[in-house]
Amino acid sequence: MKNKKDIIAGIIVIGNEILSGRTQDTNTATLSIWLNSLGIKVGEVRIIPDVEMTIVKTVNELRKKFEYVFTTGGIGPTHDDITASSISKAFNLKYGPHKEAMSILEKYYKPGEFNVGRQKMAWMPIEANLILNPTSGAPGFRVDNVFCLPGVPSILKSMLGNISNKLVGGEPILSQTINLKTVESEISKPLSDVQENNLDVDIGSYPFFKAGKLGVSIVLRSKDQEKIKKCLKEIKIFVNQKKIQIAENN
Amino acid sequence: MKNKKDIIAGIIVIGNEILSGRTQDTNTATLSIWLNSLGIKVGEVRIIPDVEMTIVKTVNELRKKFEYVFTTGGIGPTHDDITASSISKAFNLKYGPHKEAMSILEKYYKPGEFNVGRQKMAWMPIEANLILNPTSGAPGFRVDNVFCLPGVPSILKSMLGNISNKLVGGEPILSQTINLKTVESEISKPLSDVQENNLDVDIGSYPFFKAGKLGVSIVLRSKDQEKIKKCLKEIKIFVNQKKIQIAENN
Repeated sequence: MKNKKDIIAGIIVIGNEILSGRTQDTNTATLSIWLNSLGIKVGEVRIIPDVEMTIVKTVNELRKKFEYVFTTGGIGPTHDDITASSISKAFNLKYGPHKEAMSILEKYYKPGEFNVGRQKMAWMPIEANLILNPTSGAPGFRVDNVFCLPGVPSILKSMLGNISNKLVGGEPILSQTINLKTVESEISKPLSDVQENNLDVDIGSYPFFKAGKLGVSIVLRSKDQEKIKKCLKEIKIFVNQKKIQIAENN
Repeated sequence: MKNKKDIIAGIIVIGNEILSGRTQDTNTATLSIWLNSLGIKVGEVRIIPDVEMTIVKTVNELRKKFEYVFTTGGIGPTHDDITASSISKAFNLKYGPHKEAMSILEKYYKPGEFNVGRQKMAWMPIEANLILNPTSGAPGFRVDNVFCLPGVPSILKSMLGNISNKLVGGEPILSQTINLKTVESEISKPLSDVQENNLDVDIGSYPFFKAGKLGVSIVLRSKDQEKIKKCLKEIKIFVNQKKIQIAENN
């Protein structure tokens, strides 16, 4: 459900290694949880290959569609790291050594170790704003509403703290989960009625099968705690009527 | 690198729970690895919310762009399961109870247990081809080049065997990895030269940091084992010259 005031972001995961299944993407979940805590919803994620034309097209499409866009991957020193040059092309900006980034990396490495390969990590749109990297030196960067972050999950995580104050968020999106010892088909009708009555709350229903246990997690998401409470109350009514047990955890 | 003969698929992951970060998507990796084994590359993945208009638009865009499209999620019995009705709309087909699916589910449940909620799982484009589900009864379905699968990873996995013979694949994509005890910036130049010399091989470079160890995985991917071998030979030349150690595993 999109409300007028919603602030929505897009995520672009760049990398052949994700599309081949070799690497399991976890950055989407990391970014989503972090953005939600700032009151920003994720509207769409695209996972695309290391192909310049595809990156340019995808960035240009999503930066118009969403308030913010986050890219992950492709900003390292090797030939398959083409995010920075592609972003330059997307914005029609000069790609070259970024003065501040060069200076940061020069200090980061021991004298004589700032070789050509490492210098590539300072090449980006020369007017980009840097996103500092407390873990491994090489900064990410921002152009307009597009934030470019690395693909390595631990490094990406360490950089988020340097972005939060650059984002204008909304009210945080709150969430509450109730786990029921039942199956979805048993509750689909009354749950659908609760959703109809509470359009400001996103109600998700997710079956789980774990360690021989079977159940359904109902997830309520809204910016308004009172609306979540009201929804939960209505759910508990049919849960009681149907004598469904509530599980502690799923 | 796209060759003329490449057969390429798109994946659409449908579900608010992935976009909120609550659930970690693993179906992309499962589908990608399986498709690669059939000689089909994944060209793009989109993760989208449970919103009809978005599903319709995304399906219609990707089914024209790619040979095959796989959707995961949103085919259960609850109000937020809107994939089947959205696919009907995308193809302008009648949405209703599918005769064969109704009959399968009627037999699957005990007499009297095939309630309205469960019947919803048999609602889909009435002319769709079913994809049988050996795990939990409710079938997926195919319309034209679009294959609709459930979101629960174990159920999705169990259904892939029933699709393989419906797909025309290419030669399987082979892959070989060499792990080096070095950093990317040390090898970026010679590795880039090897890529230039071997355009039929996709060379990916992925740094790893695990348990205090630091290194780079070089992944070579091609349909031709000989070309991978040639590439590997050229890589080993600069690895020896630079006295870089090869690691057993990353």
